[in-house]
Amino acid sequence: MNPIRVALWGYGAMGQGVARLVAERPGMELVAVVVRDKRRVPQPVPGDPLLTTDPEEMFARRPDVVLLSTTSFVRDVETIILRIVSHGVHVITIAEEMSAPAAADPAAAKRLHEAAAAHGVGVLGTGVNPGFVMDLLVVALTGVCHRVEHIEVQRINDLSPYGPTVLRTQGVGTTPEEFAAGLKSGAIVGHVGFRQSMHLIASALGWELERVQEEREPIVTRVRRQTPYIVVEPGQVAGCRHTATGWRHGREVVRLVHPQQIRPEAENVETQDFIHIQGVPEIRLQIRPEIAGGLATEALAVNMIPLLMAAKPGLHHMTDLPVPRAVLGDAGEILRSLRPA
Amino acid sequence: MNPIRVALWGYGAMGQGVARLVAERPGMELVAVVVRDKRRVPQPVPGDPLLTTDPEEMFARRPDVVLLSTTSFVRDVETIILRIVSHGVHVITIAEEMSAPAAADPAAAKRLHEAAAAHGVGVLGTGVNPGFVMDLLVVALTGVCHRVEHIEVQRINDLSPYGPTVLRTQGVGTTPEEFAAGLKSGAIVGHVGFRQSMHLIASALGWELERVQEEREPIVTRVRRQTPYIVVEPGQVAGCRHTATGWRHGREVVRLVHPQQIRPEAENVETQDFIHIQGVPEIRLQIRPEIAGGLATEALAVNMIPLLMAAKPGLHHMTDLPVPRAVLGDAGEILRSLRPA
Repeated sequence: MNPIRVALWGYGAMGQGVARLVAERPGMELVAVVVRDKRRVPQPVPGDPLLTTDPEEMFARRPDVVLLSTTSFVRDVETIILRIVSHGVHVITIAEEMSAPAAADPAAAKRLHEAAAAHGVGVLGTGVNPGFVMDLLVVALTGVCHRVEHIEVQRINDLSPYGPTVLRTQGVGTTPEEFAAGLKSGAIVGHVGFRQSMHLIASALGWELERVQEEREPIVTRVRRQTPYIVVEPGQVAGCRHTATGWRHGREVVRLVHPQQIRPEAENVETQDFIHIQGVPEIRLQIRPEIAGGLATEALAVNMIPLLMAAKPGLHHMTDLPVPRAVLGDAGEILRSLRPA
Repeated sequence: MNPIRVALWGYGAMGQGVARLVAERPGMELVAVVVRDKRRVPQPVPGDPLLTTDPEEMFARRPDVVLLSTTSFVRDVETIILRIVSHGVHVITIAEEMSAPAAADPAAAKRLHEAAAAHGVGVLGTGVNPGFVMDLLVVALTGVCHRVEHIEVQRINDLSPYGPTVLRTQGVGTTPEEFAAGLKSGAIVGHVGFRQSMHLIASALGWELERVQEEREPIVTRVRRQTPYIVVEPGQVAGCRHTATGWRHGREVVRLVHPQQIRPEAENVETQDFIHIQGVPEIRLQIRPEIAGGLATEALAVNMIPLLMAAKPGLHHMTDLPVPRAVLGDAGEILRSLRPA
């Protein structure tokens, strides 16, 4: 069987991890990478693909699927996805809002679905969160429930490995006053994806949420915290505690809590993913330490390739495809086993 | 939208739980129950369905799906499933071996698949284990992995709620000598489903396991343990510690450990579900206490109805359908939202 031909669009930290993974997977071939500036690409690129700034050159390598990792927002990736789809090529993106684009822009979601269906390919947004911890895993756990009264998820993670862009959008290194101003101006955003996770949970369970509410608070450190990228002094902000609540019939039914900070261990905070479903039966799940975000997002983007290619054409969500799995055998054979006979 | 018409075949403890759940779910209607002896049916039956010993009377109520809960084994349920399928009715069963029937009998799996496909309906085996804890949840977690070196799952549960049949097949109340003899004669079987879980994990990941090995040991109690159904004295057997290992390229890659006993707290054993994936990233998941088995199996049987009805006809596994979810809204509407437009 011919290998699955994979191209990347975007080659930041995440794209580089994805490239390594594609290159080592049997049955996958990395055929091209669309970059912004060839001179700034760290060498060597695994799998020795074509490097190009011109998407048309990438399409000329006839990829089966493009893994897109540029920005977080539907408004920024819609045009790119429509362009890829128009070449009859599947798209998997780690753009957070694309995990449930209708939560950000229902009209865009409809356009994407119709274009993908018309060209006979699939479009999927995935990643560790949104895409897994706060939605797919939660939905799967409710599958063993007779009743669900309330869902709480906490993802307590460590921003220490992340560089300046991420730290800035989380307000790390600001004073509490600068943090407040940053929230107002939109420079500090916290987590992107709560609305998508809420949307995925609610539509899977058949709930209508009348209201989703978000809150962002600074995590002010009492001790000095340091990473390769930043030093934060006592009294400054080490991260953002971002919470979303979903309401139904006047009652809170979903609470998603995501405190993200550098060096959480400096104040004895243990990182973890935690899910508590109040219902019948009651479920308490803990993953400690938390699922490593960068690695997990890279893995999901690659592991979902055969699942998306085997699905019916159109826009997909993690909750309407079979569960992700590490595609460790020959990806082409796994794809064949998934396709209708 | 018309409600989904559900019938039950089998009305033991599990069937009764399923009936309660179907009756309370919006968009589902319990239309008939096939029982062995009408005089022995506990009253009232939720949803007031037709009670009958004659399957043809059940079919005359035109169910969309039959939930089958009679025995654990493919050899016992194949004929029943083929009969249901021939009426153009979907089948969900909690027969453990049906979660991956090819692991028990590849020819039967093929027959079931072809019959279901020919009649345009789906067939699915599900349950808490096999079907969820030791396979679906494990597979889903590997989805965030670049590499998987070894998988260990422990399900430490409590048999105290269970009656004489289950206790007997686990050897509860025997002496260690009787336990050994029971294993030999086949009267004591331990857990049914390891081969199915191994099969689901291996085929999802694209692994070929060259060997699956099982071991059963008595859990001999040091203290008196008592349930409504049995008293076990010190030195007697309180349960069965059943383990399966899967081997690939001469190395153990999967270890499933399932000690089942009455009153585990009597010797300070904490019940839990535990998954440890050695790989990149490494993952340690804990659900404490363990997912309540009976409730979860009932819920999965009912919650999978719209997912199976929306899937393409044929034999399905939990790993090739979208993740389970608590179907809390109108089941008919959820079904419609899942079906291709």
